[in-house]
Amino acid sequence: VLTVTLNSETEFIQSVLRPLTGGRPCTFGLGDDAAVLTIPDGHDLVVTTDAVASGVHFFAEDSARDIGWKALAVNASDLIAKGAKPLAYQMALAFDGTPTETWVKDFADGLRAAQTAFGLYLSGGDTDNRKGPLTITITAFGTVPKGRMVRRDTASVGHKIFVSGTIGDSTLGLLVRHNPERAPRWGLTRDQQNHLLSRYLRPLPAVDLRAAILEHASAAMDISDGLAQDLGKLAAASGVGAVIEANRVPVSEAAQRALAQNADLMTRIVSGGDDYEMLVAVAPEKAHAFEAAAIAVGVAVHQIGTLTADRDVKFLTPNGTEIVLNHGGWDHFRTDKSSSTDKDPA
Amino acid sequence: VLTVTLNSETEFIQSVLRPLTGGRPCTFGLGDDAAVLTIPDGHDLVVTTDAVASGVHFFAEDSARDIGWKALAVNASDLIAKGAKPLAYQMALAFDGTPTETWVKDFADGLRAAQTAFGLYLSGGDTDNRKGPLTITITAFGTVPKGRMVRRDTASVGHKIFVSGTIGDSTLGLLVRHNPERAPRWGLTRDQQNHLLSRYLRPLPAVDLRAAILEHASAAMDISDGLAQDLGKLAAASGVGAVIEANRVPVSEAAQRALAQNADLMTRIVSGGDDYEMLVAVAPEKAHAFEAAAIAVGVAVHQIGTLTADRDVKFLTPNGTEIVLNHGGWDHFRTDKSSSTDKDPA
Repeated sequence: VLTVTLNSETEFIQSVLRPLTGGRPCTFGLGDDAAVLTIPDGHDLVVTTDAVASGVHFFAEDSARDIGWKALAVNASDLIAKGAKPLAYQMALAFDGTPTETWVKDFADGLRAAQTAFGLYLSGGDTDNRKGPLTITITAFGTVPKGRMVRRDTASVGHKIFVSGTIGDSTLGLLVRHNPERAPRWGLTRDQQNHLLSRYLRPLPAVDLRAAILEHASAAMDISDGLAQDLGKLAAASGVGAVIEANRVPVSEAAQRALAQNADLMTRIVSGGDDYEMLVAVAPEKAHAFEAAAIAVGVAVHQIGTLTADRDVKFLTPNGTEIVLNHGGWDHFRTDKSSSTDKDPA
Repeated sequence: VLTVTLNSETEFIQSVLRPLTGGRPCTFGLGDDAAVLTIPDGHDLVVTTDAVASGVHFFAEDSARDIGWKALAVNASDLIAKGAKPLAYQMALAFDGTPTETWVKDFADGLRAAQTAFGLYLSGGDTDNRKGPLTITITAFGTVPKGRMVRRDTASVGHKIFVSGTIGDSTLGLLVRHNPERAPRWGLTRDQQNHLLSRYLRPLPAVDLRAAILEHASAAMDISDGLAQDLGKLAAASGVGAVIEANRVPVSEAAQRALAQNADLMTRIVSGGDDYEMLVAVAPEKAHAFEAAAIAVGVAVHQIGTLTADRDVKFLTPNGTEIVLNHGGWDHFRTDKSSSTDKDPA
């Protein structure tokens, strides 16, 4: 039985966070100022940092379990896309006031579920209390064989572009959340509506695709700021462009239903954020092997286009017209742009 | 000439932050989702996380240069105390609105100065924009020979307690800042006042003491939450107590002047936070070697007491009476306690 009395930072750390270390000696039970990471011989450590804040990446009223899950899942997503085997994470928590015991227990449960799903343990961190939105900043660690991290700047003209899972569910879920009237307007069943809503809060990066990415990808990244923007980044970094066949972008049944009512939602689907699917470039001669490896581990991947010498990134409809993207995706630095939690009409 | 036009997160990262990587290939110019850390054979990676937030660890009106310095210095402090050679850091920035070009340039200058002082480079991070106080969350990395991280739970009865530098300047500086009338009341010269004020914003952990700590310490940690509280943590973790001779706690000339006016300030000096000096336990037979090693690198260290079998931590005056500490030091989790920026009378 976990009985938490949040009288002090030390008690919070020892009661709530310490169990998330899984008792690993190198974490010193979160009782020291630092942790030790031992990297297997012949391996590099891959390091990535992502913060999630209330009002930007989740809503204050969301379940603490979902918040914990999302905070860790978005970091695991980066590791997987880099071909890195998840190892551990540091977590900095910034609270405004003291959370309830129920809240922190649920939050830890969400973290624990994500730890199990992605193969991470908590190695250490920091807890602070200040005015401002609840913020969870995670730096996650993974390992790759030396020199093998999958980069985003190493793709070439002619390479095939694959994505995992389905695209756009999260952004459609956010639209439904902002205006629940959209669900009946789009003809969604209750299950379809729940599917879209859950994708925003509980992203599920394709951890089982990691080995196939490490083995076959010429470049890869996760899709967090929208397919169009992130593909643009991968292409620009690699010095190429891309042509995407929009009708090959995989969408869920729920998204298909919504698209049948409003075809313009396609621009939202390819430019909305929070997918946390894998964007993978594969040399043509390796494409079959990559697909076979994905099938072998039960992860759906779809080839959606090809990298081009022309530096533009184009999304084409079946009749060859280009889809104009008004939303460039999410830029974390600007305040005058549409944000993940903006109530944008659609 | 640095010309920053902060039109986007990408531009900010590439213009302001990328130079802080020192061009190291493993950072991919901050152009990828992750960085690679290569750990020398036979070494462990030591990892520590500390966040600083406006209104808690600095004031919004403080110079951006000082804020950048402090954010990195407090993390370097943890590495040094663990005997770890500083290597690199991940930085998550949370802005409220868009900072000015001057601000970010000064901030980067402060980081750069601390990088040079402590031997770190920027490996990656995250930038977000949300309501709330400016927050800088850093996870810093260092290396130690395998299994050699200096812990806080490995000291024994009879070991000597050393501290580096002088204690209490930062907390006295904060008191002067809250009420500038204190400076003349304490009879401080302008230089002494500036010394105290600067210690709060520009902590200077004793990086040159690192090798001596690694070689000679039985346990160590940095002093960030106040000497009394941090010594209490080290002693409790090691299953021992301590007796400290208060008159051996090293204080600056400015603090001596203040103490001459108000002897009660001694409780503030040993319980105030933000010292970022080293707290080092050394076995008696190694004490001379440790002192000699400190002298050799020009770092002042003072033996202030001894670890005891009695679990209490006591600060004794020269006549043997115990100093009663009303302030237990800074607990980051409670909201109802005195905080670093509280205006506490003294």
